[in-house]
Amino acid sequence: MSFEPLRGYLRNSASADLIAALLVSLLLVPQALAYAQLAGLPAVAGLYASILPLAVYAWLGGSAGVALSLGPVAILSLMTAAALQPLAAAGSAAYMAGAVMLTALVGLFLLAMSILRLGVLANFLSHPVIAGFVSGSAILIAASQLGHLLGIRGAGQSLPDLLPSLWAQLDQVHLPTLLLGLGSICFLLTLRQLHRCGLPVRLAGWLVRLGALLLVLLGIAASALFGLEALGVRVVGTVPAGLPPLTLPPLDLQLLRELWPAALLIALVGFVESVSIAQSLEARRRRSVNPDQELCGQAGANLAAAFTGGFPVAASFSRSALALETPVATPRVGLWVAALMLGAALGLAPLLQHLPQAVLAASILVAILGLIDLRTLRRTWRYSRQDGVAQLVTLVGVLAHGVEAGIVLGVGLSLLLFLWRTSRPHIAVIGLLPGSEHFRNVERFDTLDSATVLSLRVDESLYFPNARYLEERIAELVAARPQARHVVLQCSGVNLIDASALDSLETIGARLASAGLQLHFSEVKGPVMDRLKRSDFLERFGGQVFVSQYQALATLDPELIARNRAL
Amino acid sequence: MSFEPLRGYLRNSASADLIAALLVSLLLVPQALAYAQLAGLPAVAGLYASILPLAVYAWLGGSAGVALSLGPVAILSLMTAAALQPLAAAGSAAYMAGAVMLTALVGLFLLAMSILRLGVLANFLSHPVIAGFVSGSAILIAASQLGHLLGIRGAGQSLPDLLPSLWAQLDQVHLPTLLLGLGSICFLLTLRQLHRCGLPVRLAGWLVRLGALLLVLLGIAASALFGLEALGVRVVGTVPAGLPPLTLPPLDLQLLRELWPAALLIALVGFVESVSIAQSLEARRRRSVNPDQELCGQAGANLAAAFTGGFPVAASFSRSALALETPVATPRVGLWVAALMLGAALGLAPLLQHLPQAVLAASILVAILGLIDLRTLRRTWRYSRQDGVAQLVTLVGVLAHGVEAGIVLGVGLSLLLFLWRTSRPHIAVIGLLPGSEHFRNVERFDTLDSATVLSLRVDESLYFPNARYLEERIAELVAARPQARHVVLQCSGVNLIDASALDSLETIGARLASAGLQLHFSEVKGPVMDRLKRSDFLERFGGQVFVSQYQALATLDPELIARNRAL
Repeated sequence: MSFEPLRGYLRNSASADLIAALLVSLLLVPQALAYAQLAGLPAVAGLYASILPLAVYAWLGGSAGVALSLGPVAILSLMTAAALQPLAAAGSAAYMAGAVMLTALVGLFLLAMSILRLGVLANFLSHPVIAGFVSGSAILIAASQLGHLLGIRGAGQSLPDLLPSLWAQLDQVHLPTLLLGLGSICFLLTLRQLHRCGLPVRLAGWLVRLGALLLVLLGIAASALFGLEALGVRVVGTVPAGLPPLTLPPLDLQLLRELWPAALLIALVGFVESVSIAQSLEARRRRSVNPDQELCGQAGANLAAAFTGGFPVAASFSRSALALETPVATPRVGLWVAALMLGAALGLAPLLQHLPQAVLAASILVAILGLIDLRTLRRTWRYSRQDGVAQLVTLVGVLAHGVEAGIVLGVGLSLLLFLWRTSRPHIAVIGLLPGSEHFRNVERFDTLDSATVLSLRVDESLYFPNARYLEERIAELVAARPQARHVVLQCSGVNLIDASALDSLETIGARLASAGLQLHFSEVKGPVMDRLKRSDFLERFGGQVFVSQYQALATLDPELIARNRAL
Repeated sequence: MSFEPLRGYLRNSASADLIAALLVSLLLVPQALAYAQLAGLPAVAGLYASILPLAVYAWLGGSAGVALSLGPVAILSLMTAAALQPLAAAGSAAYMAGAVMLTALVGLFLLAMSILRLGVLANFLSHPVIAGFVSGSAILIAASQLGHLLGIRGAGQSLPDLLPSLWAQLDQVHLPTLLLGLGSICFLLTLRQLHRCGLPVRLAGWLVRLGALLLVLLGIAASALFGLEALGVRVVGTVPAGLPPLTLPPLDLQLLRELWPAALLIALVGFVESVSIAQSLEARRRRSVNPDQELCGQAGANLAAAFTGGFPVAASFSRSALALETPVATPRVGLWVAALMLGAALGLAPLLQHLPQAVLAASILVAILGLIDLRTLRRTWRYSRQDGVAQLVTLVGVLAHGVEAGIVLGVGLSLLLFLWRTSRPHIAVIGLLPGSEHFRNVERFDTLDSATVLSLRVDESLYFPNARYLEERIAELVAARPQARHVVLQCSGVNLIDASALDSLETIGARLASAGLQLHFSEVKGPVMDRLKRSDFLERFGGQVFVSQYQALATLDPELIARNRAL
């Protein structure tokens, strides 16, 4: 940045950016503290993860015209805890080292995906799987905070782990902590109802947004004034004030082997969520998103996070949308947020030691409720059983076996269901729509049918999962029409014929020939035809390839076409 | 079978069946002995596996009008050895127990697949993967017999295991064994050339078929006469004469856990091979094959094999084709073969102790050569790079990592390649073929194009791997045509719209609308339309669904259609 543009920036947009950054920071401070607790990290790690990573991301540009608001997010924090809890006790040095390694791996995976232009990998997470994953994770997050709310210690990466451990300690519930937690929840829920009490909508909206920060400040004040710590209420505890420490991932191959699958999933989920947020925000401004550029920004941010405490970061929808509300804000908002968070880390640290954990748990619980979305599940189920099953299995998988197993299960199942679905393709007998040149399913339309020509439309690419089925089905259809002399496959729905299907077509052609029938094709698409020409199939199968099904009938059954013209 | 049909059978077909059974048995005896050696089992286990299993299969019927000729086959024997060698030393009691458990599991998997009608699972083994697997296995089988031929002991489930172990013992090569082995190979190869020396073709053919049996008998005679065993030539060794022992799978959960993946693969491979053989044989008789019935027969045969020694069985192409050469043979051939093999087990057992292992190795080597088929690889590669890669990776995977890893690699890769291929679908801009009602790719044909209507044909089902790509691609195409007011997606190639793609279509519709364009569809297939009607998409997207692309243009750009009519 040379001086001239800097001066122009300071004159024109700096004040708008600063205002947007202030709004974002007011939201980010309580979230950063709470999500650090969720990840099993010291509260201040959330603040650290909101400084250098944001600056790096703002500098690298990200995918969007206006940079997304990065930082700790709930689901990645849960995934971090799930990856690290089996390896070490939360808060221990080994746990911290694991967090640094995990974040570095996330950054490296994103960097590799960016270099290899593998942003397309994110597409394998289907919408139903993501929706199921988010709802399941939200429920799991809520359950993981119950312990903090009750003043007991429950740990586990799935409901079957977590709930019994909470149940066993139910007699040790700490009443002051529980009251404080319930009070905090009531405070936040009440703020959300204020707009119903005649308060101006804009003011009420701001009170809801500032609610979490107000609660944190009130919690610190109450804790300090009434000596809640002495009553046994667990607090965040002493926090080293100052700049984020410079951390380096440990050179531990064993740790690397244990953490890379979790890191890969965190990278994918963080990337998918960020790109979705960027797309939905940029669509409002009629701009498009460059996923590979986004990968690069995310990679830089996570590598920066690895060097300053270790806590995977991604874009947050609520904070990004907030930054966009200031219409003239530029991508440099992120730099201002980073500066403000640095101030918060320096200024807040001494106060944080009094902050009760139950207050953070309450703010997580209230924030997370909106993510539990069972209506989508009903809608998906109604539209497609298979997609509904994939969504439900992902949700239940996350609850029953944890985040990693849940998402792997969901992705695997959606692939299997797709293959299953294509392994028995819809094959329609088609006939001529009278008076037109179009062919339609004889079972759905009144059509003109030829006695000697059997017209079939295959509604699927021909490839290995359905190659054998095609052989069986055509044999059945031909057997039911003893008068047929020609079989014409309309290939408008065939986008691919792979080597297995080519073998099957040869078999079908030979079998039909031995029964006195000739196989033909129509409406073969260009790319499919190009490939067929590379084999010797076209010379050997003995039939013709027609440009359209109508052409085929005009050649093979001219009488029918004459009757059609007469209509 | 009541008496009347039995009497009729004996009068009419029994003699033909007996002749077919004799021919099959002459082929089966040496193969059974050799494949048992390949599987690491005592030679007589091959004979045992050819008695009860064949009888059960003949009784259950199998898939074909004429039952296939079941028994030990080369590839399953190799897979058996690969599964058991890591667990115990070949020939040990633990190895035998493992073989029984493995065969029982194979039978149970086949039974489960039969009950659940999961014959369709076999379709996931694509033709290129099977071809690569067979070629790779054949090379591995040949390598595994080199030790027997050289008189040294080499073991391993892949070339990197096997070859160094042979190399290290190269100084211990046993010359008499090597000479015997090479002599046996020369004998078999010479028989194959006899038809060139003026011998009648039929007679020469029979000499080739009987070659392996002749070699076994010659080997036994030479070994006994010249006392080869005393020279250090390894022989099959003492064999318990008599009926197959009744064996039960051990109740060992640990063993079960270790063997089930191998058993599942053996079941799938054996089933696919058997169904392929049945289909190609039945096609000659213009009958079709019932895969679920075949599963039932194979399941019974393998369970029977588990109770009589333990050695997985499947259909053999050479033997099944031989049985078919006697045109009047009935499915009861299998019963006769079982009876003859019982005789062979009783009569041959005392002689077998003198049979040199090198003779069996030679007969395996010569038999297996025909399975190494690199020409298919070249053909597949030329037709489709992806299929070629899948075939090559399977072949190399089998050689480098063994049979199980090879096939899993091949199947996984072909699925991934398919998804990759569909994740960036071909999207063509289409125009009207002048004077017709048909639309074609504007880059391949001279077409009439509308300025205000952008016609797009998507050559792929719309589902999660390509949902996001569709959004990006349509945005690009629209950006290049500022005059366009309507976008019509011709859906003749769209066989499915899943929940993710439905979300993407909503996004696309909304973005187009915000840029002043309207989205429409044409030629939506019945099943896809039925599903769309279950969502509220059709009411909300604001456009129309036309029965054909021509209809769409007639409505949206009547001027163009008028010009076309004038042509």
